[in-house]
Amino acid sequence: MPIVTVALMEGRTQEQKDAMFARVTEALCATLDCQPEQVRIRVEDMSDGDFAVAGKSVARSNAERESP
Amino acid sequence: MPIVTVALMEGRTQEQKDAMFARVTEALCATLDCQPEQVRIRVEDMSDGDFAVAGKSVARSNAERESP
Amino acid sequence: MPIVTVALMEGRTQEQKDAMFARVTEALCATLDCQPEQVRIRVEDMSDGDFAVAGKSVARSNAERESP
Amino acid sequence: MPIVTVALMEGRTQEQKDAMFARVTEALCATLDCQPEQVRIRVEDMSDGDFAVAGKSVARSNAERESP
Amino acid sequence: MPIVTVALMEGRTQEQKDAMFARVTEALCATLDCQPEQVRIRVEDMSDGDFAVAGKSVARSNAERESP
Amino acid sequence: MPIVTVALMEGRTQEQKDAMFARVTEALCATLDCQPEQVRIRVEDMSDGDFAVAGKSVARSNAERESP
Repeated sequence: MPIVTVALMEGRTQEQKDAMFARVTEALCATLDCQPEQVRIRVEDMSDGDFAVAGKSVARSNAERESP
Repeated sequence: MPIVTVALMEGRTQEQKDAMFARVTEALCATLDCQPEQVRIRVEDMSDGDFAVAGKSVARSNAERESP
Repeated sequence: MPIVTVALMEGRTQEQKDAMFARVTEALCATLDCQPEQVRIRVEDMSDGDFAVAGKSVARSNAERESP
Repeated sequence: MPIVTVALMEGRTQEQKDAMFARVTEALCATLDCQPEQVRIRVEDMSDGDFAVAGKSVARSNAERESP
Repeated sequence: MPIVTVALMEGRTQEQKDAMFARVTEALCATLDCQPEQVRIRVEDMSDGDFAVAGKSVARSNAERESP
Repeated sequence: MPIVTVALMEGRTQEQKDAMFARVTEALCATLDCQPEQVRIRVEDMSDGDFAVAGKSVARSNAERESP
């Protein structure tokens, strides 16, 4: 029954996502006493203009770091 | 007040989504004692590379089924 | 594959929720070309102090309506 | 620790989003006794075909209003 | 149309939440060109045993800090 | 930056959750090129009356299995 949502900054490759699906499913089954077939994982890619920490979008923070 | 999120594998037509909005709103009002104006439904399309069951993305499972 | 979340003001009975599960699953299958076994629905009860419209919690709006 | 998700009809500019990030972070810190570094805000843009009120998508409601 | 979810460590008072609802609604309307009646905000309280940073629940981190 | 939500049928112990936090964080860092401090995981417990598969709540399915 675990339904998992993983919100990520966009840019990971499909290979990275596939490796993550396998390893996270393994980790859930090893600790939560469930079967792989019960595990659903969803990735939500976030653009750096749509995610903010401390009131500033990641896009803006990166731009300021690159041209202070 | 029902706020509903429907996460779907991408690919449904707008007609299918419009029919779903109407029928699900009807179902909610018939069972939860609420008015249509109170119902908000949001569709979230998922790509088959971003959704995994049993540790494998739907994209990968489909590819393996098509070329075993 | 539809994974549905229904956020509701708390207070519905289990009978109402069970009726909603059946009717919403029917509505999704009739419009989105999917099978009942593929449909997962989750109810999230919200307390009236934790949900606000127009800047005011439902609890507060109700209290003001009852004692203007 | 506040993790905030803001689901919006798509179409806002990055400037509007950046102004929102700053003002909402300020509002949270002023009322919830937390620090800006603890606040994460995520914007989720919704297309008008994927969001429905009263059983009708916003796209359809807008189209009907423009050509009754 | 903004639908906002604010996930918080549990423990805030209703007064804090009410103040947050008002100030965040104001912040959204001032920056996103929307009306208060269009804004819905939902608080989700998280217990410190159900939220983890860097692989450790907040409950555990707090306990270790209090009795190193 | 990964922000993870794990929706579970309620009933897991805090030990199981703590083991899951550690192993899932490890799995994410090993596959997504991120640091443990960037990973936030949230558990959402679901009661069996609030989660349905194929139109029937888990509570009902369990009851029918126990007394067919």
